[in-house]
Amino acid sequence: MPCPAPRLIALASPDDPRIDAYRVIKERDLVGRGGRFIVEGRTVLDVALSPRNRFRLESLLIAESRAAALAPLLAQAPADLPIHTASQEILDGITGFHIHRGLLGVGLRGEEPSAAELVASLPERALVVMALGITNHDNVGGIMRNAAAFGADAVLLDFASCDPLYRKAIRVSVGGSLVVPFAREGNAATLLDLLVAEGFELLAFSPAGETKLKDVVAAPRTALMVGAEGPGLSAAVMVRARTVSIPMAGGFDSLNVATAAGIALYHLADL
Amino acid sequence: MPCPAPRLIALASPDDPRIDAYRVIKERDLVGRGGRFIVEGRTVLDVALSPRNRFRLESLLIAESRAAALAPLLAQAPADLPIHTASQEILDGITGFHIHRGLLGVGLRGEEPSAAELVASLPERALVVMALGITNHDNVGGIMRNAAAFGADAVLLDFASCDPLYRKAIRVSVGGSLVVPFAREGNAATLLDLLVAEGFELLAFSPAGETKLKDVVAAPRTALMVGAEGPGLSAAVMVRARTVSIPMAGGFDSLNVATAAGIALYHLADL
Repeated sequence: MPCPAPRLIALASPDDPRIDAYRVIKERDLVGRGGRFIVEGRTVLDVALSPRNRFRLESLLIAESRAAALAPLLAQAPADLPIHTASQEILDGITGFHIHRGLLGVGLRGEEPSAAELVASLPERALVVMALGITNHDNVGGIMRNAAAFGADAVLLDFASCDPLYRKAIRVSVGGSLVVPFAREGNAATLLDLLVAEGFELLAFSPAGETKLKDVVAAPRTALMVGAEGPGLSAAVMVRARTVSIPMAGGFDSLNVATAAGIALYHLADL
Repeated sequence: MPCPAPRLIALASPDDPRIDAYRVIKERDLVGRGGRFIVEGRTVLDVALSPRNRFRLESLLIAESRAAALAPLLAQAPADLPIHTASQEILDGITGFHIHRGLLGVGLRGEEPSAAELVASLPERALVVMALGITNHDNVGGIMRNAAAFGADAVLLDFASCDPLYRKAIRVSVGGSLVVPFAREGNAATLLDLLVAEGFELLAFSPAGETKLKDVVAAPRTALMVGAEGPGLSAAVMVRARTVSIPMAGGFDSLNVATAAGIALYHLADL
């Protein structure tokens, strides 16, 4: 099937007001909020332009030099999505750093469900990931990627964890942050209360866990909890949950937290 | 047990010849060879100073300000290991970038076994990871970390893959690169020949794999093979192996390659 030509809007200046949202991306990174988020790169845009993306895109911004190669992908964009093109020189002027992937977009966060609303919306059988104190963007991105890969129904993050819609987390998630419903608020105690009230079995992952992962049969509603590398989950969390370990070879410390979540999801999702 | 005071050598100049190996680390990064490698950060040093480290350290270089906090760790160092200390200003002058972890070391590669020597040295029951075309340092580091966590006996990498002793790969491996025997040479065909001749069952991991991972029982000698994200393993590799998939939820592309290796190792190592 021949691709329709994408509707491109060529820019002549980095100060064009139609791309105000792309200015000072580093500031946006630091804030990570503000109703918008940045997506970048072809793999993420692939997800962002698919029906699996839960968010609305506001616009795209691409390097002129990539327009031809990206035409098939851009043909999937909604008819009313503005797609701006500019020379690499203008792109550099707009964003303050070299966009080596030549492909950016702005998404709108829209109405974000509270953790309570998200948990209330889950089906009778549900697998939830709970991330506590995960301040590293790569790890949050990796958790979102794995949650998407294994079809987790939701990810809950405490407020100490970083935002899955932070630019780098989205990139590392290869779009998983756009796919899996999540809420980020409160602390371990409030999130645990919520899940217990909704009938979830809580699994706390730790090298010191009492049950080996392979011996765990997932309950109809299961929440798997992971904490930051190093400190791990707090004692207050561990006592409220069934503690589970992923056995490792003697003497080596521990798995990366996103990898541990991936292994747990692999076992529990049973696809 | 009280810790003996570490033997510190205070430096007064970034040009001190005793720390020549630390100069121009960025060049070393690019080359990645030369008989030496750089380790950095407390977690990696912990492994580097443990009996699990297969390599000899040549020296350490730490920020004066961290000497007290690191004393218990440094007490594990061999008596003849020079431990240099310097002000942050001098450190910055030595290495050309700010060492925010305040802790560097130089290791010696020593005699490196060929792939054939490494495979010949393996026990009767052995689990090997084979990484083909993995050019990303984070992914090679992640594979080395997971190989260490699950007690893989060796990692074979083709020459297209990056060096596990590259600075960033060591850091991401949290020392796994120092622990698991590896060889990096040749291409897929030569490495496959070697493993087949030594009686290994070859498992080729791919989303298109015919057997689900959970249905695989590890043979006494098993080699699990992973390729670069995106292209994956070549057809030439796939036809020579049993192809294995890690089932994923509909529509989501794929796992990170190091995570996939971690899940495969979790299942096959059966700890």
